[in-house]
Amino acid sequence: SFQKLGDNGGELTTLQKLLVFYKSPISKFCYHSSAYVIFLVLYAYVVLFDFEYEMTYMEIFLLIWIFNHLINEIAEIAAEPSLSLRGKINDWVSSVWNRFDMVSLLLTCMALGLRLHRQTFTWGRIAYAINTTVFYCRLFRIYHVSYHLGPKLVIFYRMISEVLVFLALLVIFILGYGIASQSLLHLSRNAFTLNSTSISNIMKDVLLTPYWQMYGELQLEEIAGEDEQVCHQKSCWVNEVCFKDNTSCTKELDCVCENPTDYSWVVNLMLFFYLIIGNIMLLNLLIAIFTYVFDEVQENSMEIWKFEMLRLIQEYDFKPALVPPFVVIEYLWRVCKYLWKLTCREEKEN
Amino acid sequence: SFQKLGDNGGELTTLQKLLVFYKSPISKFCYHSSAYVIFLVLYAYVVLFDFEYEMTYMEIFLLIWIFNHLINEIAEIAAEPSLSLRGKINDWVSSVWNRFDMVSLLLTCMALGLRLHRQTFTWGRIAYAINTTVFYCRLFRIYHVSYHLGPKLVIFYRMISEVLVFLALLVIFILGYGIASQSLLHLSRNAFTLNSTSISNIMKDVLLTPYWQMYGELQLEEIAGEDEQVCHQKSCWVNEVCFKDNTSCTKELDCVCENPTDYSWVVNLMLFFYLIIGNIMLLNLLIAIFTYVFDEVQENSMEIWKFEMLRLIQEYDFKPALVPPFVVIEYLWRVCKYLWKLTCREEKEN
Amino acid sequence: SFQKLGDNGGELTTLQKLLVFYKSPISKFCYHSSAYVIFLVLYAYVVLFDFEYEMTYMEIFLLIWIFNHLINEIAEIAAEPSLSLRGKINDWVSSVWNRFDMVSLLLTCMALGLRLHRQTFTWGRIAYAINTTVFYCRLFRIYHVSYHLGPKLVIFYRMISEVLVFLALLVIFILGYGIASQSLLHLSRNAFTLNSTSISNIMKDVLLTPYWQMYGELQLEEIAGEDEQVCHQKSCWVNEVCFKDNTSCTKELDCVCENPTDYSWVVNLMLFFYLIIGNIMLLNLLIAIFTYVFDEVQENSMEIWKFEMLRLIQEYDFKPALVPPFVVIEYLWRVCKYLWKLTCREEKEN
Amino acid sequence: SFQKLGDNGGELTTLQKLLVFYKSPISKFCYHSSAYVIFLVLYAYVVLFDFEYEMTYMEIFLLIWIFNHLINEIAEIAAEPSLSLRGKINDWVSSVWNRFDMVSLLLTCMALGLRLHRQTFTWGRIAYAINTTVFYCRLFRIYHVSYHLGPKLVIFYRMISEVLVFLALLVIFILGYGIASQSLLHLSRNAFTLNSTSISNIMKDVLLTPYWQMYGELQLEEIAGEDEQVCHQKSCWVNEVCFKDNTSCTKELDCVCENPTDYSWVVNLMLFFYLIIGNIMLLNLLIAIFTYVFDEVQENSMEIWKFEMLRLIQEYDFKPALVPPFVVIEYLWRVCKYLWKLTCREEKEN
Repeated sequence: SFQKLGDNGGELTTLQKLLVFYKSPISKFCYHSSAYVIFLVLYAYVVLFDFEYEMTYMEIFLLIWIFNHLINEIAEIAAEPSLSLRGKINDWVSSVWNRFDMVSLLLTCMALGLRLHRQTFTWGRIAYAINTTVFYCRLFRIYHVSYHLGPKLVIFYRMISEVLVFLALLVIFILGYGIASQSLLHLSRNAFTLNSTSISNIMKDVLLTPYWQMYGELQLEEIAGEDEQVCHQKSCWVNEVCFKDNTSCTKELDCVCENPTDYSWVVNLMLFFYLIIGNIMLLNLLIAIFTYVFDEVQENSMEIWKFEMLRLIQEYDFKPALVPPFVVIEYLWRVCKYLWKLTCREEKEN
Repeated sequence: SFQKLGDNGGELTTLQKLLVFYKSPISKFCYHSSAYVIFLVLYAYVVLFDFEYEMTYMEIFLLIWIFNHLINEIAEIAAEPSLSLRGKINDWVSSVWNRFDMVSLLLTCMALGLRLHRQTFTWGRIAYAINTTVFYCRLFRIYHVSYHLGPKLVIFYRMISEVLVFLALLVIFILGYGIASQSLLHLSRNAFTLNSTSISNIMKDVLLTPYWQMYGELQLEEIAGEDEQVCHQKSCWVNEVCFKDNTSCTKELDCVCENPTDYSWVVNLMLFFYLIIGNIMLLNLLIAIFTYVFDEVQENSMEIWKFEMLRLIQEYDFKPALVPPFVVIEYLWRVCKYLWKLTCREEKEN
Repeated sequence: SFQKLGDNGGELTTLQKLLVFYKSPISKFCYHSSAYVIFLVLYAYVVLFDFEYEMTYMEIFLLIWIFNHLINEIAEIAAEPSLSLRGKINDWVSSVWNRFDMVSLLLTCMALGLRLHRQTFTWGRIAYAINTTVFYCRLFRIYHVSYHLGPKLVIFYRMISEVLVFLALLVIFILGYGIASQSLLHLSRNAFTLNSTSISNIMKDVLLTPYWQMYGELQLEEIAGEDEQVCHQKSCWVNEVCFKDNTSCTKELDCVCENPTDYSWVVNLMLFFYLIIGNIMLLNLLIAIFTYVFDEVQENSMEIWKFEMLRLIQEYDFKPALVPPFVVIEYLWRVCKYLWKLTCREEKEN
Repeated sequence: SFQKLGDNGGELTTLQKLLVFYKSPISKFCYHSSAYVIFLVLYAYVVLFDFEYEMTYMEIFLLIWIFNHLINEIAEIAAEPSLSLRGKINDWVSSVWNRFDMVSLLLTCMALGLRLHRQTFTWGRIAYAINTTVFYCRLFRIYHVSYHLGPKLVIFYRMISEVLVFLALLVIFILGYGIASQSLLHLSRNAFTLNSTSISNIMKDVLLTPYWQMYGELQLEEIAGEDEQVCHQKSCWVNEVCFKDNTSCTKELDCVCENPTDYSWVVNLMLFFYLIIGNIMLLNLLIAIFTYVFDEVQENSMEIWKFEMLRLIQEYDFKPALVPPFVVIEYLWRVCKYLWKLTCREEKEN
């Protein structure tokens, strides 16, 4: 015996039933999710095919859609129970999903600002590309309702701190091995001829090469070193070489010369130890940590997931019934309703 | 003191003994398995060497063999205890092995239909190739009787759902990274010039490249980007550059240009984070999940395996004594016997 | 208060002390191990540098050394407590190390036989190479005395059966994927033109390529397929194409043609699923199994190791005091001693 | 109610407060760590860009800095509680971090000695490069204070012994497989023509190639073998081939010839088994060991970490307040203070 939901305590009319169904959190979740998937397809289309210097209609449509998101989020902040604006924002930011939304919206604003100027157009493209990743990661929100995927996401989130520990340990070995190997493989690098290209090359060689090597992309031909003799000018002296009969002497320039290929075996040995530490010790230690932590958080994950589910339902209960591109209409209507309440209703009641 | 098995309560004759031995589930299992292995060898031979536009004798022989399988499966469905046809099919489908059989038989029919027509001949070959995999996977049925392999298969089957969770998480990161990186590496893609080849290339770049990268095939030279300048026509304006004495001015076209190699470092950084998430976090999380689940299902696996063994023995008890290529004969004989029972025996009894 | 060890119940003389030290199992173990390491160095030298058609002195010396091993093993068999020859051999074979010795000695005999004949000389080299591996694996015997390494070896030995299960599951997926992908990538293979080279190529493509792919060596360029059209002759028919005014008609040959590159996407998808199953599911399942089994056998491993240690000490107690290349001398002396006991001592006692 | 810290039992003056703050272990740790990071940046700069035959100012500055380190360590040894020098050194060496310091300082001295001489200049560069790694690994000292990283470092340190066990097992398989495969792939190697280059090549082929293969860098094209016929001269004999009518006979040289490509399939098979053992069995066994050991040492790690923290605080309490490049000043001042205590104070007190 559920309570009657109708206006006058009776049954709902068909239209009311439809409205209740349409406004229930589960329905809202379904069509908001569908709308979001469509949004992602459009976004992918724009960044892959339709990103020109002059905005295309599709891109403008996309930006309107994101603008709707923005209004949505502002409404959510306004609806937080806290009284002060600071408190409202703090409450809102406490959810990891809202932080996602904030990042994506800030990135969009930045991307829009950058792409509109001639000089920063290329940075605008980069911002759009990075934003793609953020928008796709927001899809995990939809995964969250799944009984199978939700708790795994909670555990995944918990594991991030363990991976950071792993990276903190790894970065030291990467730096130690990367700098040592580069100092042996590239002998003629000079600090006075550095430009942005050569700096980015050095960063790549020092940081990324050891990182790729950790994944088994050993790049052995790079480790072999270029076969070019580098001689130190200041070390040269003239060496007089005389034949036995001392009749003819030839002067030879004797310099200290180095060849990266001579150092190749040292770099090979360094790679040997680096791989043991980076690939075998650290990775396997991480596996052991994951196995340990998984056993610990497995039970809690279900609790946390249920708590998150509650939050999600509350959020969708509040969410407008219209999907993003038309959500402005709903908010306009809400504002009208609010104004009507303030003015007309009072009159009526009077 | 076993019960005597002979017709008149006495010992079995030598021929009867041979028949009992030949009809016992274990013997049936042995020669059905051997026949199946021979079938697989023939199938491999046909798809590797003997798949011509006009069917070869070997292929026709193979299709007859599969037709025997088909009759076998129909007989099995008919023998299910349920009374209605729907119930019989439901009972039959409830076993994962029967689902395997169903898929392979449907694929065979489809493959036959496709390969017989000129236009769809190439699709026929694809269907034959996919069917090879399905036929080989049915071999696990034979593994199932092993005390060592059986329970492992049960656990393997249980792990599939965990891998699906892993894939569901992975696909989001693949899409996010794949679309973002492609939007930076291929600037001149155009939605209006898309054809089937270019679409399949984009699908490969967006979906498969990140997937291969997860396995350590980093394809670093593709990430470096092609060194080709792409200029936006609509962004061009004429720039008048005058010398100091203002006597001569040259007009220059000033355009916003992009080069994929300039974005290379962004894609490298994206790959950096993608590999941490895809290769390190997700894979190690999966290992932790597997370790956890394995400990849980280890005991049950033995129970489930024993239950499956019972099912297997029952099935082989029912199976015809003749192996597939000649199984039609047995079924014909069964029908004859059944008809004889219906007609002659009654007369005899009368 | 140890018991006096001297002949007449008193102290040992210096020479006797030296002999006791020299004959103690631990000393014997040390110099037998050293001798074995020297043997391995020599063996490596011979197979790498000194394997000619005519035997070099080094190789002959090596064969004499192995002959000494052989005598040693025969003496060990003779010393087993069982009375019958069959029992002695069974007792001896029950130790995994003796089985190693047996295999290496049989391989040596075979290798010697093969390398002496003109026709089988190349097989002789293969047998020598394989024997290298067996001889080096015998080094684990020396590891076995280590407190750290010994129990790990016991666990390693226990894990072999789990790896066999893994391989048994893997081989089915390898066959299924390998045959299916090869049937799409190489269309013009013909059973009638097979020779040993093409068979070994097909074996490599079907079995080894999927195996290497499991280790992340994806060989994507091989999967792309060669770009060569293969047309089926029997499918060709003459197609008359007439222009609209019917004045001129040209005859065209219309054939069903295939191109491996058209099937590339199917093979890519197959590799997609094969890698999930082979690299992710099976490998991670194996890790889970190893983790489980390790926890189980960890305690027992110590017990088994101690038992093996006892066996080892007993063996070295029996072993001749001289190291392999001179061991013949010791055995000759033992035989002499035995004969003296039989003849002279009896006289003396009389 | 803390105890008053002022000289005369009262409050501290502002300058005293500043000094107390500046001399507290936590502040010392902060600026010593910062100074060390700056040192590492300078060191990286020198080895990457500024390592010339004639020392640059930067390198000299660096060496002065390291000299300061040296004095620091000597002061630490002197401050150890033990009375004898040997005891002091033993106490000091018992900490793993001090051993790190010792190695790095010895390496620096060696590197300096080597780089100053013409003949050993290249070895000097190698020593500098290796020292880079050691200096960067000392950074872990700073990590040690972190609540998250510290215990992980303790566990990491504990795992080293397990990895050594793994390597000890691995090296046997590497040698067995490496020597066997090389004996088949390079047939014309000769012990008499060996020089340092060819020896280092052989070492690489025998030891490093199997090691890289373990990480999935299978180098399949090297395993295929060079396609060059090697014939044994001593095996040649003259074969008279006569035609049927015996009128004309031709003499043919019949030799035993070998081709590495003929042995390719054996090497492939060897790699097959080597990968199962090296990549699958040993690596997964190591994962199982790590998981087991991690569960064991997890609790202890926190205890050990706390003990290490105490040690660290004590060390920083003793450390000079000035950072390394100026630390000499502090020590000079300490010596002065000590002398003053010895002489002036006594007078004062008198």
